[in-house]
Amino acid sequence: MERKTKLVNQSRTTMTEMIMPNDTNPLGSLMGGVLMRWMDIAAGICGGKHCEAHVVTASVDHVSFKHPIKLGEIITLEACVTRAFNTSVEVYVEVFVNNFEGKPRVKSNHAYFTMVALDPDSKTPRPAPLVAPETDAEFRLYEGANRRREMRLVLSGRMPIEDAVDIKSLFKG
Amino acid sequence: MERKTKLVNQSRTTMTEMIMPNDTNPLGSLMGGVLMRWMDIAAGICGGKHCEAHVVTASVDHVSFKHPIKLGEIITLEACVTRAFNTSVEVYVEVFVNNFEGKPRVKSNHAYFTMVALDPDSKTPRPAPLVAPETDAEFRLYEGANRRREMRLVLSGRMPIEDAVDIKSLFKG
Amino acid sequence: MERKTKLVNQSRTTMTEMIMPNDTNPLGSLMGGVLMRWMDIAAGICGGKHCEAHVVTASVDHVSFKHPIKLGEIITLEACVTRAFNTSVEVYVEVFVNNFEGKPRVKSNHAYFTMVALDPDSKTPRPAPLVAPETDAEFRLYEGANRRREMRLVLSGRMPIEDAVDIKSLFKG
Amino acid sequence: MERKTKLVNQSRTTMTEMIMPNDTNPLGSLMGGVLMRWMDIAAGICGGKHCEAHVVTASVDHVSFKHPIKLGEIITLEACVTRAFNTSVEVYVEVFVNNFEGKPRVKSNHAYFTMVALDPDSKTPRPAPLVAPETDAEFRLYEGANRRREMRLVLSGRMPIEDAVDIKSLFKG
Amino acid sequence: MERKTKLVNQSRTTMTEMIMPNDTNPLGSLMGGVLMRWMDIAAGICGGKHCEAHVVTASVDHVSFKHPIKLGEIITLEACVTRAFNTSVEVYVEVFVNNFEGKPRVKSNHAYFTMVALDPDSKTPRPAPLVAPETDAEFRLYEGANRRREMRLVLSGRMPIEDAVDIKSLFKG
Amino acid sequence: MERKTKLVNQSRTTMTEMIMPNDTNPLGSLMGGVLMRWMDIAAGICGGKHCEAHVVTASVDHVSFKHPIKLGEIITLEACVTRAFNTSVEVYVEVFVNNFEGKPRVKSNHAYFTMVALDPDSKTPRPAPLVAPETDAEFRLYEGANRRREMRLVLSGRMPIEDAVDIKSLFKG
Repeated sequence: MERKTKLVNQSRTTMTEMIMPNDTNPLGSLMGGVLMRWMDIAAGICGGKHCEAHVVTASVDHVSFKHPIKLGEIITLEACVTRAFNTSVEVYVEVFVNNFEGKPRVKSNHAYFTMVALDPDSKTPRPAPLVAPETDAEFRLYEGANRRREMRLVLSGRMPIEDAVDIKSLFKG
Repeated sequence: MERKTKLVNQSRTTMTEMIMPNDTNPLGSLMGGVLMRWMDIAAGICGGKHCEAHVVTASVDHVSFKHPIKLGEIITLEACVTRAFNTSVEVYVEVFVNNFEGKPRVKSNHAYFTMVALDPDSKTPRPAPLVAPETDAEFRLYEGANRRREMRLVLSGRMPIEDAVDIKSLFKG
Repeated sequence: MERKTKLVNQSRTTMTEMIMPNDTNPLGSLMGGVLMRWMDIAAGICGGKHCEAHVVTASVDHVSFKHPIKLGEIITLEACVTRAFNTSVEVYVEVFVNNFEGKPRVKSNHAYFTMVALDPDSKTPRPAPLVAPETDAEFRLYEGANRRREMRLVLSGRMPIEDAVDIKSLFKG
Repeated sequence: MERKTKLVNQSRTTMTEMIMPNDTNPLGSLMGGVLMRWMDIAAGICGGKHCEAHVVTASVDHVSFKHPIKLGEIITLEACVTRAFNTSVEVYVEVFVNNFEGKPRVKSNHAYFTMVALDPDSKTPRPAPLVAPETDAEFRLYEGANRRREMRLVLSGRMPIEDAVDIKSLFKG
Repeated sequence: MERKTKLVNQSRTTMTEMIMPNDTNPLGSLMGGVLMRWMDIAAGICGGKHCEAHVVTASVDHVSFKHPIKLGEIITLEACVTRAFNTSVEVYVEVFVNNFEGKPRVKSNHAYFTMVALDPDSKTPRPAPLVAPETDAEFRLYEGANRRREMRLVLSGRMPIEDAVDIKSLFKG
Repeated sequence: MERKTKLVNQSRTTMTEMIMPNDTNPLGSLMGGVLMRWMDIAAGICGGKHCEAHVVTASVDHVSFKHPIKLGEIITLEACVTRAFNTSVEVYVEVFVNNFEGKPRVKSNHAYFTMVALDPDSKTPRPAPLVAPETDAEFRLYEGANRRREMRLVLSGRMPIEDAVDIKSLFKG
């Protein structure tokens, strides 16, 4: 059976959250783990729309937190699929802090999630539809996906370093 | 002023959580983001004990989720510091799923968090106490910390790949 | 001082929520009050962006709930300002249920919220920027705002029925 | 089969809530949506007792929020049925703010909810018991229910304005 | 300064809760600790109304849980003061499970809480108003309060067993 | 069938919690009921590990709260079984407040929980494994369990005072 191909826009997902008291640490700023939980939900919704199935999180790449986000601030999470592998799809999640005073929103951070589509009955992985990038930004995300996947396989011990062709080329030049 | 040195055991932290309905996805297993939130709290408590100050999350390294954890299961999170840098400390968090039938608990996954100690008044970073490893396992975590830190700096764009001495040596051999 | 005028798009807000177990009633469908709470948050974020200030809810118009929304389903809330009055702004919130099987999303319901902008120090109302509609849909919402406002004033007992010019004209024809 | 008739007091419901940090907005007062969620729960419990079945929210009439309710304050919600229609029952919910200094509690706001009783197996609507008002206040609520119902049908587009006999008479006089 | 005396009814408090998924254990029944949390909130609200001040929990007497309470069931908590000591007041909390099928509600369990009134500024204990019982039931609760207080002091190690006059008389007869 | 015997250490459970805003009362300290809920979860996890089955709370003995625990503080809960009866097991839960400034943690309070092991299918009680104490502290807890059980039976009205042999001997001397 041929695999479906879908556009990135068909599953693009926007979430908005207001920082509530229980989301903050004793210093009054958003806890990193609360933000990761929201990013994971955004990735799950986006991956679910693309795969037309429930998805589970297989991995999250490195996440950095740069600026403190404060109680009462509003953040926007934007998630889009970048590329499909066999039964998984990579989802890119960006976080922005909105500015009430009319200035443009500021990017806070981002992360790449790998989500696996599950068959609702057997709860085993099933093929994910392919991703057709359209814009330059979508193509760049699509192109980088293989290198990030190699990195993940190395970091989780499922690929020996010497087989990581894409990464090695980065370090060898 | 000389920096304090502390043992790993002085801040070792154990958390236990029972998977409640709201922690699960529609397939009935623990959501990855909920687990990351708990891991972040464990890292924050452990880092806070070591630094004797409130800490905030600066970054989380790659996390993989292998086996689904089910509603009603009990997990144990164990966090320990591995090494201190200037104003930050790396915390290693492991997650185990307990087994009610008397069999030994099973490791589910782990992650490395970088936590920054903040001065309570100025809310600016302050020096973190040094870490003195004692056991073999603690020494291995201590030794690997520099390589993981290089990787973080590269991944977050704050170190050019050609300066990542430790990582390059891995790929060159 | 002249009042600022802003476009509807400058504060348009999208929220996405996944129905979790604690959001459902014993029959397994989303509780009306949970949905109202999310709609209120969307209205508050949208109104806050437009007014460049924190806003509080002054009133919510009639809300109907037609189709049950089930555990695990994804809903999208879209909020936009329709028109500003003196210190308040009307926000229109629509709710859509997404469909995993690739079919278009289905509108679930909508409501009109009246949000009041508060001065951060005195916590008293302050003037809201005017709304400049651009599209046909935005104009229709803008035009209807006065009639809905009359209705609100009558329903909350702050305007005698005989002064509700717009509404009376509807019933007299 | 004859429909049961029940007194208002048989299902009268009192809820008490303390305003916790996560219930408040960044200005420190109770969020409108949190209050609506509690009012909806009170209406659901009251309607459920009357109908001796689980009920779902079909609609909520206009709600106004007048005075800010502060963190740590105690509110009381009182819900009672006013009148039954075929498969639905109207529930009136009042909210009061208690006063710690011994002064009488102050009414904050109220709303009318329409709740539909569902058959536990088929999850389809089933007849609601009739309401027998006893006191003057109960009779007034009973009498007004038809007019409010007409208003709801008009507002949700299920009744043409020209058929709204009760409402038209208000505007025609 | 003379201490105020207040009637039991002036602070009687009714709370109603619906058992939500996150309140239940993996066997589908209400967790004991969730119920204790609600009982504590009811005791705090009731004690706060009586003392006209915020109160904190000093102790909770023995609580038994007899029958499982199920997901979706409605419980009513009723709290009343029984007697005041110097800076504390004893609050009696009863829990009832409501029955949708029109049968009378069933008592589930009860507990005695000791609440201490705090001065809002100094956060130190302050005198609690005296309690004037009116009904037979209120008198019985009032009479038993001294014996329960002795028991608490013995159990918490603040009174030697030989000074517990009231309790000893029970065992000696 | 012979009953299994297990060591105390096989089910010893450590929980760590950080006091979040929603866990505190308006005076900024941990609510007693929130702490009781955590103690109950710790008891449930510990009892579940010992019994190798889900357990429910049958009763909680007297709990005292001495010192206020503040927002942002870290507490550790330690639970261990003390002795098994037929289908129930007594669990001892201690609470400690950690000190960031490097001083030793301070015991806050403790309680004894009685947990009943349920058969997963029939949801009826089933025999609990016996407890084999090893250390002096474990023996003391084991020895006191019978007396505490008598007290519970008397307090819940299931044993006449004159049959409470162990307790009577305390008061008679």
